[in-house]
Formats: sequence, structure tokens, C-alpha cells
Amino acid sequence: MKNYATTPEPDFADLAADLSTARTMGRYAVLAVLVFTGLARAQDPIETVRAFRIENESRILREFVEFLEIPNVSSDAPNIRRNAEYIRKALGKRGIKAELFEIAGASPVVFGEIKTPGATRTFGIYVHYDGQPVDIARWTNPPFKPALYTAAIENGGVRRPMPKPGEPADPEWRLYARASGDDKAPIIAALTALDALRAADIALTANIKFFFEGEEEIGSPHLAEYLRKYRDKIDVDAWIIMDGPGHQSRRPQLVFGVRGITGFDITVYGATRYLHSGHYGNWAPNPAMMLAQLLASMKNGAGRVLIDGFYDTIEPLTPEGKRALAAVPEIGEAMRNELGLRETEANSAPYVQRLLLPSLNVRGLVSATVGETARNVIPNTATASIDIRLVSGNDPEAMLDLVESHIRRQGYKIVREQPDRETRRANAKIAKVTRHGGYKAARTSMSIPIVKEIVRAASRAAGEPIIQLPTLGGSLPLYLFTDDLQKPVVIAPIANHDNNQHAPDENIRLGNLWYGIDLLGAIFTMPP
Amino acid sequence: MKNYATTPEPDFADLAADLSTARTMGRYAVLAVLVFTGLARAQDPIETVRAFRIENESRILREFVEFLEIPNVSSDAPNIRRNAEYIRKALGKRGIKAELFEIAGASPVVFGEIKTPGATRTFGIYVHYDGQPVDIARWTNPPFKPALYTAAIENGGVRRPMPKPGEPADPEWRLYARASGDDKAPIIAALTALDALRAADIALTANIKFFFEGEEEIGSPHLAEYLRKYRDKIDVDAWIIMDGPGHQSRRPQLVFGVRGITGFDITVYGATRYLHSGHYGNWAPNPAMMLAQLLASMKNGAGRVLIDGFYDTIEPLTPEGKRALAAVPEIGEAMRNELGLRETEANSAPYVQRLLLPSLNVRGLVSATVGETARNVIPNTATASIDIRLVSGNDPEAMLDLVESHIRRQGYKIVREQPDRETRRANAKIAKVTRHGGYKAARTSMSIPIVKEIVRAASRAAGEPIIQLPTLGGSLPLYLFTDDLQKPVVIAPIANHDNNQHAPDENIRLGNLWYGIDLLGAIFTMPP
Repeated sequence: MKNYATTPEPDFADLAADLSTARTMGRYAVLAVLVFTGLARAQDPIETVRAFRIENESRILREFVEFLEIPNVSSDAPNIRRNAEYIRKALGKRGIKAELFEIAGASPVVFGEIKTPGATRTFGIYVHYDGQPVDIARWTNPPFKPALYTAAIENGGVRRPMPKPGEPADPEWRLYARASGDDKAPIIAALTALDALRAADIALTANIKFFFEGEEEIGSPHLAEYLRKYRDKIDVDAWIIMDGPGHQSRRPQLVFGVRGITGFDITVYGATRYLHSGHYGNWAPNPAMMLAQLLASMKNGAGRVLIDGFYDTIEPLTPEGKRALAAVPEIGEAMRNELGLRETEANSAPYVQRLLLPSLNVRGLVSATVGETARNVIPNTATASIDIRLVSGNDPEAMLDLVESHIRRQGYKIVREQPDRETRRANAKIAKVTRHGGYKAARTSMSIPIVKEIVRAASRAAGEPIIQLPTLGGSLPLYLFTDDLQKPVVIAPIANHDNNQHAPDENIRLGNLWYGIDLLGAIFTMPP
Repeated sequence: MKNYATTPEPDFADLAADLSTARTMGRYAVLAVLVFTGLARAQDPIETVRAFRIENESRILREFVEFLEIPNVSSDAPNIRRNAEYIRKALGKRGIKAELFEIAGASPVVFGEIKTPGATRTFGIYVHYDGQPVDIARWTNPPFKPALYTAAIENGGVRRPMPKPGEPADPEWRLYARASGDDKAPIIAALTALDALRAADIALTANIKFFFEGEEEIGSPHLAEYLRKYRDKIDVDAWIIMDGPGHQSRRPQLVFGVRGITGFDITVYGATRYLHSGHYGNWAPNPAMMLAQLLASMKNGAGRVLIDGFYDTIEPLTPEGKRALAAVPEIGEAMRNELGLRETEANSAPYVQRLLLPSLNVRGLVSATVGETARNVIPNTATASIDIRLVSGNDPEAMLDLVESHIRRQGYKIVREQPDRETRRANAKIAKVTRHGGYKAARTSMSIPIVKEIVRAASRAAGEPIIQLPTLGGSLPLYLFTDDLQKPVVIAPIANHDNNQHAPDENIRLGNLWYGIDLLGAIFTMPP
């Protein structure tokens, strides 16, 4: 078995020069140059990887299915460990030295290292192997029994068997399973890219450190500690974080920042018990209505958050960020069409502009019941769960302080536990506020040379200039890398934007998985 | 077995004259008069009934438990019929001619008739034998396994065995079971009052027609049809409806009206699927927030409904109603203390005044989930269930028209079915509104002579002047009797106000059951 750590370094210098010239000419130009410079002497690594994938699609999918069959809900410790062991062995099979980082009470991190002789720099590849909880009743198929469809189910895709060996797979096919898109796909992509390069005897051009986390979907509670504890082992020149969905236009993208996140649960109280809505209706306070009024006071119909100071700490975008933003295709109308919406917030303002603002999102709302089980009662509590996405400049705790000040200004007494009788009798409006954990937003400068090189590698894999997004709408604990470790970080999402991440019927479009393999092939063989 | 239909009429005239004089002097004065006029000649029926009850408490409770053990959720047809048969047999055992009224697809009505020779008038006694659904997980004991407690559970009551024969029962004890308060208690009270009068050989003074309904808790869908179909059989001079809770002061009350009821379910729509709250937060519309804003637009923080015209059709109270209202003790502060509230709606305005207004009550509110299962999503729908209590003058359909006009004024397109893609793309705000069935409020004049006599009988049973409430907060299809049949109706609730009607841990305070027995003893023997 070939071991990457001992593979001799190839000479890519001339190929790289050729590619640099050809880069803006598109994929066919690249191919032409490759042919011109002589394929026998130096294969194009991306073309090699792609050819390998095409020959091995059924095998790649078989390995992916095997991996997806291991349930990976973050809280399911025994299965989380099975996933970690699976990855460690999969790396081991490729001759890569892999180990489990451990912290008591935490899910393990799988760490794998490829030392490339003579390499002058090191890339860290971050992926997470855990997944969101599953609301099984709402899935078309069981979430850990991967199912292949000819297209997205909502667009009329039908289930079909896995391809037989040698049978080509349509890039529009979708593989449905929890974590298929978020975030096991990059792991399979990495393993496949390594297999392809090994099969063609193409050596890597940099040291690679794989860091596979198992707690991302519960907010990465031990990531900071892991990064501290193993600081020496994980020292790299730049991190590539493979997570999140790709651009809605389906054009590949790289992202240089994320929104941070925090949030809170809020419960407001009426009487100590349910009351008959006839005997006490419009006498007793109704917590469902009180909560509606309180939430409505937080945001207006035009999508503007009305909490004092909510927009005061936003750091403006740099000129390079503004330029990159202007080049991002606007996907608003296409997405509205896809999602059955006539308008989006702030009079259908451009999508990328909305991501530059902190959000206030009601992720759940419950008081008593609706539907068949609804009864003529005045509920005794009403609860909302709210998440807040943060942008550069927002401090999580300070934002929650603003929210709590707002709640107090609406006349509420804020408590941390279920209020006792004395508290209830002393306060007409009581809100129990439970703050979520959270972390701030983060950004990497797009003008750092190594960042620019990664952009070039991704464009080579994509065969066209990629989209460069200053910030992703979603959240990752990127600040641990950018601020705590002081390293450049590029996010390289590969999943289709409509992968139903975090929701039932999560899926990956095969074409997106194929791009992930190409991308990693390009990164592993970047001109040094 | 003695049959009431053939019992000779006793001469109560002189006793009645005595009682009329003594009435305002309280129970002890009544007793003194009774002793003076000679107990041997004419027993006081109420005292007789009371003495019988005291001697038979354990037996009465045993019969009640047996009755409560038959599950009676309105939708449970087989058990509903078991309840009806049980009542029919219980009446038959007392020599009362009883039959089941039937309409295809409806739960039966149990009809029992006592013909009193020489009686010049007939009272109808309405009770319902069905109960609300049970959310078993929230009950301390199974709802159809009656459990006796030394006091209300929330006030530290502890479970105790049923009393042995001869063992006295504390009137503060509570019997917990579905329908113990709402509304099987008056049935047991009627059976016991009849037993007591029969045991003492005291004859009734009026014809009695029992009408026991089995569909009240699902909105009495066939009551109108039953009253029409059996109109000749059910002709009476006045109806006494035994349902609802007693006054919060624990003083007995009679009620001369009810609020009507209607309502609606409303669902507002966001995207066609759950969205990741990071990638789409503050871009995609959030239906939970939209619903909060819509609900908040319907009612202000001072408890005033903001829907145009909502208060425009209220019929003002008559002068007699105003006088009665002024004499009703205000229970607001006591109830606020009991319910752990500092304030109630409209700056803690008097309870009885609030019942003179139509209400708008959010009885349930759901969008995605809260708690452990909450996820970082933008929900795709949000639903509220709302009930509206109506007062005299409000038409149910017209009130819902006002609500829908208001919803439209907030920019919503109202639909009746789940909206299709075209509707979604054409309308930024869509609300599916499902109207509930409903009926109007009703009132009986307090100045009708037979109504005044019932008030006097109840005061005799209570041993003190009773509270006369122009309207109950709750709803009953009273209009069928007052408007359709054009008969006076008096509501005589006996259940304790804190009986957890419609909720888990429903119960009856034994003292309230005892009062019900006395009350029916007094009505059955009212001076003719």
C-alpha cells in the first residue's frame, strides 16, 4: 500500500506556469495546453482525478453509502465513535497516519497527517462528521438508509438502484441520507482524491493535516479546547474548511467569512394553570398573545429588527469585500421561484446584502396545541426559540444584552428559572430567558497570497472563475481559526444549496460530490 | 319500587308561606320556623334531603365513581352509548320512565320524565354526560379511575381511600376524574335528590323532564335537531341547565345568560420548505414572526381587540341586569391571588364587566418546535387556533367576517386550502383561515315570575341569597332554548370554579356535589 508520507515530490513548476496562463481561458483551454505540453510527461492532476472518478463512480458511492449508514447524530456517543473509527481506518487504508484526539466527555477528533517530503507549506482540512438530529417521521426514507434518486424528490425525482460497477452515474442524481450534504461528502471526496492521485502515481505538493470534528452540529463545545490542546500538531499555513452549501447558482464558490451565532429561548407566563377560555377569556392574560406582541415589537414587517442598537456594531465591508460582493450573481429571484415566495425581507433586497446584517429568527413557537388536540383554554405559558446570526463587529453576549434590554423595556421582568408564586404576584409580565451559547462572526482577508492561490486552485477544479463570497449566511466557529490561531481560513463548500441541510430529506447532488473530489485533487497538487 | 309519576301531591302551601317569611333570615331562622310549625306534620324537603345525603355519603360516592369509570370522551361512540345506557338504567331503577332519543350519526339523548299528578307546570333539567378529550400524560391519575383527595392537589391535597359506609366525608375533599365537575355531577345529584325524597315519602310539586345530552363538548352538533324532532315531548315551562362552574367566591349562583362562541384556525406561510436559518435568516420571510405580527395587530397590551367593528354590535345590559351585576361580589383580586397573577386584562377591570365583551383568545400557537428538538431553521408555516366568545348582539359569522377583513387589511390573501405554488408566487402574505362552527350568545330576563321562583328555591337550598349573574363567561347553546324554543332558561352550575374543567386533573369538591343535591331537592319541591 502506497504511503503518501513517503511519495517523492513531482515537478509541477512548468505545468503550473502553463496553467497560470491558461487559467482565465476556461477548461478547454487548459486541456489544450495540457495536450500541447505533453500528457505523457506530466498528467494534469485534475483531469487524472476526474478520469479516476468516472471509472469508479459505483465504488465511490458504495463506500459513501457504507459511511452514511453509520448514524451520526451528535448526541449519539457510541455511533459518533463508530464514525470516528470508520474514518481513522479509511485513512489508515490509504497509508495515512491517523489518530483520534480525545478530550474527556467530548466526541473524538479524527486527525490524519500527510507529510510531503520537501513541502514548504501545510494545509489544514477541516470537515465535521456529526449530523443534526433527525425527525424520522418527516423523512421520505429512513435517514440512515441512503437512497438514490434520479433528481430532487420535490422536483419529481424517483428512487433508483445504486449503479452497478461500470454503470455511469448521472450528476443530477441525489443521494438522500442524514449528513450526505452536511458534512460527510468532503470526507469521501478527500479519500477519493487521494485514491485517484495514488493510482496515477501523482504526488502531493504540500503537507496535509486532516481535522475531522464530531461535535459541530451541537455548537462545537470542545473545538477551542481541542485546538489549544493539540496546537503543535495542528499548526498549518492555512485552513480549508469544507462545510456548508454551495452557491444557489450551482457555480462553485469559496467563502471567506461566516456569520456568528447566538440565541435564546423565551417563555412568558399567564396563570399558574390552563384556564377555560370562556370563563376567563379577556380577563386573564393570554401568554400566547403576550408573546406574539413581544415578538412583533422586535421586528417590523419590512424585516428590520427594532431592538435598540441591534445594527450599531456592524463592521463595514472592506473595499476588496465590496468588489467581491458586487461580482456575486444575485440569486434572489431564482430562489424565490424555487421556494414559492413572492417577496423576501426588506422589499426583496439582494441576498448577499442581507447576509451582512445580523438576523433575528424565530426558529420555533409553541403555546398549548393547535389542530385536533386544541381545546378552549387560555394557555399558561408560551415559548419561542430564537437564533441570532452575528456579523463582524457583533459580540454574542452584548447582542443578547440588547435583546434583554428590549424585553425589559416592554415591561417584562426577566427570570432565569420558572417563576415562583411571589414573583408572579409581583410582576404582570414575566419572561424566562435562557441564553444559548454562541460565538462571533469571522472573516479572512481575500488579499493574502495563500488565499489567492487557493482561489486559483478552486477555479482550476471548477473549470471557470469561482464565486468569492465575503461571508456565508450560516455559522461556523471560524473565529477559533482566524482570531485564536491567527490563520487564514477559506471555506470551500461543495454541497448543493438545496441539500436540505439540518432538515428532513437531506441529500447531495452527485455532481457536487464530483466537484468536491476535483477540488481536493487541485488543492493536494497546488503549485508549491 | 316507588314511581314518582304516581306519588300523590303533598300540601306544601303553608310551609311555603312560612319559608317565604323566613327566607331572608337565613338557614337557622328557617329551621326555627320549621320546628315551630311542627316537623311531624311537614318535613322541610331540603333538610330531609340533606339528612339523607349525610347518612348515605359513601353510597352516593360509590355510585358516582361507578358512573365516572365509564369513559365519556365525546368522540368515543361505544363508551358514550354505555354512559347513556347507564343513565337510562339509573333512572329506571328509580321508577322513572326513561328512553333514548336517537338521530342517525348522533350520540343519544337520555330522556326521562316524571309526571306529577296535579302539577301545573313542568321543568326541564338539562345536563350533558359527555366529557372533553383527555391528555393522559398530564393527569396525576388516570382520568377514568376516580381518585379521592383531601383537598385540591395543587393546594397540598393527598390521596385517600373512599369513605367506608357510615364514615362522614369532608366537603373539602375532591373527587378527581374526567367529567366529575363537567358535567356528570348534576346527574348524580338528581338521582340522589330523588332517592332522598322517595325515602322520606315527600312528593314532587312539578313535572320534571330530564334531558341528558352526549355531544356538548364537541359543540352540540345535533342538539337543535333533537330539540326540533322531540319538540312535543320536551315541552316545558322553564329549562334549568346544570353545567359550568360555580362562582369563584364559592357562593352558589344562578346565571341567566351565556357568551356565544366561534373561532378560527389560521396558518401563515413562508417558503415551501424549512430553510437553514443561517443561510436564509433575514432574507426569507419567517411565518412564525409574521403570525406574531398579525396576532399582535389584533389586540393591544391593554386587552382591547383592535379589529374594526369588534365591539360595535354589543347589546347593552338591561337595568335589571345592571342591578344584578352591581350585586355580584368582585372576585378579581382573589382569583389573581389564586392564579398567581399580578394584573388581569384592561388594568384589572372587574371580572363581570369583562364578560360583557366579546373575547379574542389564542388557544394554541405552533410553528416548528421549541426545547430539545428545536433546530436552526426558518419554519415554513405557523398556525394559531383562536376562539372568540360572543355577547348578546354579536353574530358568529359576522364577527368572523370582521376578523377576515382585518387580516386582509394587514396585506394577507385569505385561502381555504393549502396554497399552491401559483398562489404563493402571486402573494407575499397568505393566510389559510378555517372558520369554526359557532353560535350566538343568549340571555333570559330575570324578571319572569318562574325565573324569580327558581332564584328563591336556590336561595333556600343555599341557605343564603344566591349570586345572580347576567352572563356566564363560558358558552352553551342556550339560544336553542331561549330563542328557538322561546323558553326561560336558568343556568344552575354546581361545580367548584376550580374544577379544572376541560383540563387535566378535573375534579369536583364534595361540598359542591352536596349543594347540587340540595338544589335539586329544592327545585323538585318548589312551592307550586
